[in-house]
Amino acid sequence: MSSKKRTSFIISDGTAVTAEALGQSLLSQFPNVVFHTEVLPFLDTRKKADETVELINRTVSESGERPLVFATLVDDELRTLISESNCEFFDLFDTFLNPLEDVLGTRSAHKIGLSHGMKNAHGYATRIGAMNYALETDDGIETRSYKDAQIIIVGVSRSGKTPTCLYLALQYGVYAANYPLTDSELDANRLPEVLEEYREKLFGLTIDPFRLQQIRQERYNRASYASARQCQYEVAQAEAIFRRSKIKFLNSTQMSVEELGAKIMQKTGLPRH
Amino acid sequence: MSSKKRTSFIISDGTAVTAEALGQSLLSQFPNVVFHTEVLPFLDTRKKADETVELINRTVSESGERPLVFATLVDDELRTLISESNCEFFDLFDTFLNPLEDVLGTRSAHKIGLSHGMKNAHGYATRIGAMNYALETDDGIETRSYKDAQIIIVGVSRSGKTPTCLYLALQYGVYAANYPLTDSELDANRLPEVLEEYREKLFGLTIDPFRLQQIRQERYNRASYASARQCQYEVAQAEAIFRRSKIKFLNSTQMSVEELGAKIMQKTGLPRH
Repeated sequence: MSSKKRTSFIISDGTAVTAEALGQSLLSQFPNVVFHTEVLPFLDTRKKADETVELINRTVSESGERPLVFATLVDDELRTLISESNCEFFDLFDTFLNPLEDVLGTRSAHKIGLSHGMKNAHGYATRIGAMNYALETDDGIETRSYKDAQIIIVGVSRSGKTPTCLYLALQYGVYAANYPLTDSELDANRLPEVLEEYREKLFGLTIDPFRLQQIRQERYNRASYASARQCQYEVAQAEAIFRRSKIKFLNSTQMSVEELGAKIMQKTGLPRH
Repeated sequence: MSSKKRTSFIISDGTAVTAEALGQSLLSQFPNVVFHTEVLPFLDTRKKADETVELINRTVSESGERPLVFATLVDDELRTLISESNCEFFDLFDTFLNPLEDVLGTRSAHKIGLSHGMKNAHGYATRIGAMNYALETDDGIETRSYKDAQIIIVGVSRSGKTPTCLYLALQYGVYAANYPLTDSELDANRLPEVLEEYREKLFGLTIDPFRLQQIRQERYNRASYASARQCQYEVAQAEAIFRRSKIKFLNSTQMSVEELGAKIMQKTGLPRH
């Protein structure tokens, strides 16, 4: 039996980031259907809505089936144009607005672009500032500015520190520095002195030594750096330092940066922007 | 008249990234209500669900009002526990599953963590690979590896190239390098030779000269670099190069990285991971 195929459109008046996340998440619950998905962001004019209705009609004539449409459209006129076209319409946003109005006993603003735009200018500046901070303090450079850090991620080379810091900055506006534990520091078997005064900001990352070896082999040729023995030694020493210094830590092996970021926010209680 | 206040919880069995984006987006439509919002990710056990129900009950006794709950919970038992507690429940995920099952004529998998986890290992590796690539090629270093780029962002210093590249990598898995147009290249008034062979991969960023000056003044002391005259000159020269070389470009002044990223994906048609 061949898999079913189905066309879907993800439509938004903004970036479509939210609609795409929820739409793809819903579609991923149907693994036996092959979806051809097109994302249509910034649908914010009558003209674009008309073009999209044409695209939907074309899809129906070509495939013989109504496409699925997942939409976050705030404007009533544009939403109605799409929802009344020849498609299966899933209204990811408006579905909840009327019930929310009832519960809150007040009308909603119905304004576009309040989520991933720059309307919240302060929050946005914080996220970009945090991103620049992560880049400037990456890999243990500029330890002098650790006083500005909200969190300092500590771990061996290639344990996932940099992507985690950049994600914390971009998603949550958190000022995250990172500090790589070097050979001599691991040999010394104690927390590097430069980190001592920031102890309450430290958060450890560890990783399965075998996975660490894979990552290092893929990216570098230096045999000693990527040897099984070296990776096992470094990870064991790092974890011993975390435990002895009572530093919270996570194992990054099976976790995406999104999962690491969410767990770190949960475990530290850092504020979000 | 004082603003209304209301407690809300954003609850997910995963990272809560999707629930938070949609929940906050819905709440932002009620600017006259002050929300105290708590995000509760990784609610994936009976014990955590029981604790959350207790938290909800405590909120009701303390505030005298039922909290709003925005949830993406795939597991039926856990979802029922929360939805039947003393709250106003907004089911951001399951609301659409039954109608989707009807339309598709098939049952859904009801499996947790299919969106922001590592289940799609290849896609995830691509995103992290793209992030490393963006870091390694940042600011015009390593132009030798431009053959691996899917896009090369070109612009004057501080026009927003680096955050845009990192976002394209993290969100869409796009290999994005960036190249800063230097003084001498701007004086020469033509596309730098090293970029000639990659012309079809180039994408320009420009920025309002006044905003550019602000950014440069905030971050650097070098007077000439941040002078109004210098900023105006650089932006004018860069835009002239983009136009003459027929390079698509965007103005980053009023756009968030999410908006820049979504627009660039739309304008280039690059594939998403």
